[in-house]
Amino acid sequence: MKKVLLAFSGGLDTSYCAIHLAKDKGYEVYTAAVNTGGFDETEQQALAQKASELGIKNHVCIDVEEEFYQKGIKYLVFGNVLKNHTYPLSVSGERVFQAIAIAEYAKEIGADAIAHGSTGAGNDQVRFDLVFNVLAPDIEIITPIRDQQLSREEEVAYLKKHGVDKEWEKAKYSINQGLWGTSVGGAETLTSDSYLPEEAWPTPAINNDEQLVELGFEKGELLSVNGKKYSAVDAIKKLNEIAAPYGIGRDIHVGDTIIGIKGRVGFEAAAPLIMIKAHQLLEKHVLGKWQLYWKDQLGEWYGMLMHEGQFLDPVMRDIEAFLEHTQGTVTGKVLVKLASKRFELQGIESDYDLMASKFGQYGEMNQGWSGEDVKGFTKILSNATLIQQSVQKK
Amino acid sequence: MKKVLLAFSGGLDTSYCAIHLAKDKGYEVYTAAVNTGGFDETEQQALAQKASELGIKNHVCIDVEEEFYQKGIKYLVFGNVLKNHTYPLSVSGERVFQAIAIAEYAKEIGADAIAHGSTGAGNDQVRFDLVFNVLAPDIEIITPIRDQQLSREEEVAYLKKHGVDKEWEKAKYSINQGLWGTSVGGAETLTSDSYLPEEAWPTPAINNDEQLVELGFEKGELLSVNGKKYSAVDAIKKLNEIAAPYGIGRDIHVGDTIIGIKGRVGFEAAAPLIMIKAHQLLEKHVLGKWQLYWKDQLGEWYGMLMHEGQFLDPVMRDIEAFLEHTQGTVTGKVLVKLASKRFELQGIESDYDLMASKFGQYGEMNQGWSGEDVKGFTKILSNATLIQQSVQKK
Amino acid sequence: MKKVLLAFSGGLDTSYCAIHLAKDKGYEVYTAAVNTGGFDETEQQALAQKASELGIKNHVCIDVEEEFYQKGIKYLVFGNVLKNHTYPLSVSGERVFQAIAIAEYAKEIGADAIAHGSTGAGNDQVRFDLVFNVLAPDIEIITPIRDQQLSREEEVAYLKKHGVDKEWEKAKYSINQGLWGTSVGGAETLTSDSYLPEEAWPTPAINNDEQLVELGFEKGELLSVNGKKYSAVDAIKKLNEIAAPYGIGRDIHVGDTIIGIKGRVGFEAAAPLIMIKAHQLLEKHVLGKWQLYWKDQLGEWYGMLMHEGQFLDPVMRDIEAFLEHTQGTVTGKVLVKLASKRFELQGIESDYDLMASKFGQYGEMNQGWSGEDVKGFTKILSNATLIQQSVQKK
Amino acid sequence: MKKVLLAFSGGLDTSYCAIHLAKDKGYEVYTAAVNTGGFDETEQQALAQKASELGIKNHVCIDVEEEFYQKGIKYLVFGNVLKNHTYPLSVSGERVFQAIAIAEYAKEIGADAIAHGSTGAGNDQVRFDLVFNVLAPDIEIITPIRDQQLSREEEVAYLKKHGVDKEWEKAKYSINQGLWGTSVGGAETLTSDSYLPEEAWPTPAINNDEQLVELGFEKGELLSVNGKKYSAVDAIKKLNEIAAPYGIGRDIHVGDTIIGIKGRVGFEAAAPLIMIKAHQLLEKHVLGKWQLYWKDQLGEWYGMLMHEGQFLDPVMRDIEAFLEHTQGTVTGKVLVKLASKRFELQGIESDYDLMASKFGQYGEMNQGWSGEDVKGFTKILSNATLIQQSVQKK
Repeated sequence: MKKVLLAFSGGLDTSYCAIHLAKDKGYEVYTAAVNTGGFDETEQQALAQKASELGIKNHVCIDVEEEFYQKGIKYLVFGNVLKNHTYPLSVSGERVFQAIAIAEYAKEIGADAIAHGSTGAGNDQVRFDLVFNVLAPDIEIITPIRDQQLSREEEVAYLKKHGVDKEWEKAKYSINQGLWGTSVGGAETLTSDSYLPEEAWPTPAINNDEQLVELGFEKGELLSVNGKKYSAVDAIKKLNEIAAPYGIGRDIHVGDTIIGIKGRVGFEAAAPLIMIKAHQLLEKHVLGKWQLYWKDQLGEWYGMLMHEGQFLDPVMRDIEAFLEHTQGTVTGKVLVKLASKRFELQGIESDYDLMASKFGQYGEMNQGWSGEDVKGFTKILSNATLIQQSVQKK
Repeated sequence: MKKVLLAFSGGLDTSYCAIHLAKDKGYEVYTAAVNTGGFDETEQQALAQKASELGIKNHVCIDVEEEFYQKGIKYLVFGNVLKNHTYPLSVSGERVFQAIAIAEYAKEIGADAIAHGSTGAGNDQVRFDLVFNVLAPDIEIITPIRDQQLSREEEVAYLKKHGVDKEWEKAKYSINQGLWGTSVGGAETLTSDSYLPEEAWPTPAINNDEQLVELGFEKGELLSVNGKKYSAVDAIKKLNEIAAPYGIGRDIHVGDTIIGIKGRVGFEAAAPLIMIKAHQLLEKHVLGKWQLYWKDQLGEWYGMLMHEGQFLDPVMRDIEAFLEHTQGTVTGKVLVKLASKRFELQGIESDYDLMASKFGQYGEMNQGWSGEDVKGFTKILSNATLIQQSVQKK
Repeated sequence: MKKVLLAFSGGLDTSYCAIHLAKDKGYEVYTAAVNTGGFDETEQQALAQKASELGIKNHVCIDVEEEFYQKGIKYLVFGNVLKNHTYPLSVSGERVFQAIAIAEYAKEIGADAIAHGSTGAGNDQVRFDLVFNVLAPDIEIITPIRDQQLSREEEVAYLKKHGVDKEWEKAKYSINQGLWGTSVGGAETLTSDSYLPEEAWPTPAINNDEQLVELGFEKGELLSVNGKKYSAVDAIKKLNEIAAPYGIGRDIHVGDTIIGIKGRVGFEAAAPLIMIKAHQLLEKHVLGKWQLYWKDQLGEWYGMLMHEGQFLDPVMRDIEAFLEHTQGTVTGKVLVKLASKRFELQGIESDYDLMASKFGQYGEMNQGWSGEDVKGFTKILSNATLIQQSVQKK
Repeated sequence: MKKVLLAFSGGLDTSYCAIHLAKDKGYEVYTAAVNTGGFDETEQQALAQKASELGIKNHVCIDVEEEFYQKGIKYLVFGNVLKNHTYPLSVSGERVFQAIAIAEYAKEIGADAIAHGSTGAGNDQVRFDLVFNVLAPDIEIITPIRDQQLSREEEVAYLKKHGVDKEWEKAKYSINQGLWGTSVGGAETLTSDSYLPEEAWPTPAINNDEQLVELGFEKGELLSVNGKKYSAVDAIKKLNEIAAPYGIGRDIHVGDTIIGIKGRVGFEAAAPLIMIKAHQLLEKHVLGKWQLYWKDQLGEWYGMLMHEGQFLDPVMRDIEAFLEHTQGTVTGKVLVKLASKRFELQGIESDYDLMASKFGQYGEMNQGWSGEDVKGFTKILSNATLIQQSVQKK
């Protein structure tokens, strides 16, 4: 009997897939959920329970939180990656690490096929397919939802017919939660002109009391919050716990999908946004002009390929080497003020701070050079344009 | 008698320069102030009065507000230019247009020298010198403040000795105001860790009542606010009038100065920040992926050269041609919600909106293609990395 | 009866397609050949004759040579486009303009389908499909060769069965000729280690007599050769006529295909290579440093998208606007020495030459500035790195 | 008595400096020559002899050939650096390593000043000054030639007056030789339209017999020639010994100097040009599309900063980390045919060759995918432009 590994979320679509693969396709169905920070113990047990109710041969929950951080999030922070200037790639990053875990587990259990429940109009289908094609080229990919385009009602009826008769709640907003943020889709995000209403956001914005938070970075990684040390993963969670109730980090990402249409999705990512902006401010103090420039270039590209599921492209490893090398001096504290739905970067302290020099203070008196030096500097610096004006503006 | 044209602000430094140039250097002193949106009628008259008190031969106020917009700000918006991801180049842009006006006026009056009151540790000295060197290479540049490095007390004493005996108020914060924003320098901005206090910001944040503003763009230019048409310059002023009392658009810019030290300066720029972010959102809906990518690249470069006083470099005209060409479809409305010290982009409406297509909605059902098409797409898209894994991961 | 328009080359593959579409698919078959500089009158008549023998309803030869130059080649020269540092996109460019002509003609005759004879492992299939999908989304695309993967023998037998019994010569090298160069494929180019032998190159290298050629550029376009004026298209032809018999412009292009595999193809492009290198040298004399830098960036991108069939992406029009704007001063003469299989750029003459200035000669005595000026220049220029060393190298 | 360290070449200019520093300035004069591959034993002894004749306190020759390769040339090859598409930075690279050696030796001997003989119109003065300013900020820099702008005759007369009476030969061409190539300046390179005559080139082009050379690269480094292993430095020398007598690698570099004027200089660099082109070809076979793309970007920037004396900018170390990381698979052989004044890259062999795959051969039949897959691929790939045409071309 052929084995299929189904990426399982417990919802209507993947439940339909589970039964369809077993009954119509004759597969022995294994399921796996991959935790990138979105599932707690209770949710994992609930998932296992759902799998069991569907008669799944074996269900596992694979935890990749640490790997997601070490191989993904870390570089997104190093690169200050905000897709289209706002989106920290909350879902995009996750999907890649989920797909890798699924592909590896499929090979481990000797699966003949991998199934996933993606629709045909999103990015996730591409991210999953790309990773599976590369890491498990000999394993077939099955995508019942994408292929059959069934309506919700048809799926419910099919499941009922096969003895799975339960309430399939249709949430008003589709939520995807993980360590690096939560995405929110709904009726409003299918339009161009509407914003998500207050109730759409998973974390209620209930805190209005301004407070200061001190973030401690070591070689680019956030490793302490308010003076207390945390593991990298826990530091993200701690910061999010503090900042999310302010309603910080909400926005709507609009961008080009991998399949060429424009897409729009809400997200809530308090910790990612604060971390990236704080990290970036620290870098402005400790890195040189061209380091900042090229980090921007490569960070943007890294984010684009990550977003588009091309994480396995070898250029990504090269970019990681670059980004890592730039972080040697990105150590210090950043002070951030949290307020209702916004935050202010107050300033930084760092032993590597290039402002803390004896050479001169911006706009004040100069100590390391003379007015004559600057005069010579600007004289030479104007040569090229002066010559061009003189020769070409006849 | 040799003529000098002094760029005049009415403050202690340029007043010292005026007397010094006349008394010690024997020049016939002309002064000019250049208005880039910061002076109203009263201030201009006050300036003329101060010039007169100093015995200036002739004082003029040159208005370049419209030119500043048409040749500078317009392209900063097209390019969504935020230096170091935050600063709209409020002062940087102004300086270039002030320098150009001074250089042209100096040639018009046959000046032998141009004088400016810049210190030796800032960007402005370079911006002024560069423009003067290029546009008026035969006119000498005199910079008494940079060269002599006098203390405030020495300047006051010198002026008193020459009959100019008045109160020289020393503002706690040094403010520079113009059409594209206001800069704020003070004790805090000379450190790395302190933020500007509430009283430092020129516009008090007194409005807390959330309101929606509708911004109308035509080919990339903001030409209506809340449905009412304005000239481009007036639209900026109108938006600022509405938004500034919310305390929107405040931040501190940290970056590399042209002379190689790091500098930090506060700014308040409600209209510029809202306009750029709104314009950018509209572009996400109406421009293609690679248009957005290359606009980012060239916009950043344009901003960098503008910031560093290299506005006259011929590549700037080429970049302007590129940016202008991208704006043909950047027409539509952007809805923005203003709140205390923050704003939210709600959405857009545009006849050119690429989301408003019949081809498919992100994450929903696909209409223009099949699941098989995407399968083929991802198959081919994974070829390169699959081959690389297969050949090189031995 | 449904109409199909077949892109027709007269070879075995498209002859097979013609009969297959008529006999097996029941189409009324129209054929079109598109001339991008590769066909002379005789060849066009031979093609029409072949079409007639196959019982084609109607055959046309569409001439797009001028359009290919004005909308494509011109910008490839402006951008100095050499794919992977060597290949002038001889075939890549052609295909796009052929596809556009086919799509437009198909719409004109109300075709229900467009057929082309591309195989499934090359770039051309993608280039054709992309353009057809965009310009004629409602017309079906039929690709018998790609879909059926028949052997040569099967095709010959099929044609014979349908009364087309002739000698189908199998050339040792597959040649594609056009205005912007000729591609050469053969057994050697399917390997990584073999070079094309002398006989593979279409133009024998028979001229060894060194000669000088003077190329006259006006705003970036080659419009005179050896002092005689030509239209842009004729100038290319003239230069090729002179230079090709030297065996100049031969090389092998190795690169990533659009479908992710690596490909290798020989090419012979005397005029394109000389023109681009001469144009580039002229630009080094008349453009500024950052103009050259950004032209490189955008030229490379333009070439990449052209190569990959994405000519219709709107960013291409924006890049063209940029490139065109840079060419205002690219006027002058370039002297080139032709020799056996190589050429030497001797030098240039231009009214816009930035070397011809009174300001100073490289390495000689300086006239426009003093040693003190350079000292100040380097002092300030070293500030940033000096500070970084001083603060961070503890 | 104050000590000065003079960078000494034995020519008229630095001989003048030696006497001037001792007699007019009262310094104890030390001299150093830095060997970057241009001096053999005899030349070094001749230099020491000249120093001795001038009464120099102490003369040393510092050998940095290996360091020049390991910290400079290696990365220029990794980055395929050809400034302005032709110049391997023969002199530019050398100068930086010479300056570093001088600065370190100056600190070692406790020099109060460093002197160099650069003129005021070239790049070298800037390269020297920049490195000295950064590495030895407390040591004064003295540049008598730049400051005094003496004529040749004045210098000769001055030396004669101080007892140094010898023939100062004025070479028709100024030659600078090193491991990474030789530069050639002369009357022709001061114009824009003249080429260097045959006799100007240091190595006579006497070999016309075509031969094949096999270059063996390991992780990007040339470590064997014709199957024989060499150290990296010796491999360059060996290749140059074989190829230079063909007259290969000659060209004229035209570009923007650091001080803003255009400059033109001939160079002869057989080994560098062959190595870079061979290395680049190998990379086309073993690296992915985006690896090649970003290597080009960063390689160009690396070359630009190296050329402009900014080798100590920390971004250079980050770029080196990137480049190094890309070289893991750049191992294999490249076959090159040498001919009179040109070379042909014949092909490569590598275990990492991405063409040697079972997935499909370019333009031939596809094995890893179907025609349907490509159809789906192009369908999805055309979505974005199709939508844009449909929505925006009304």
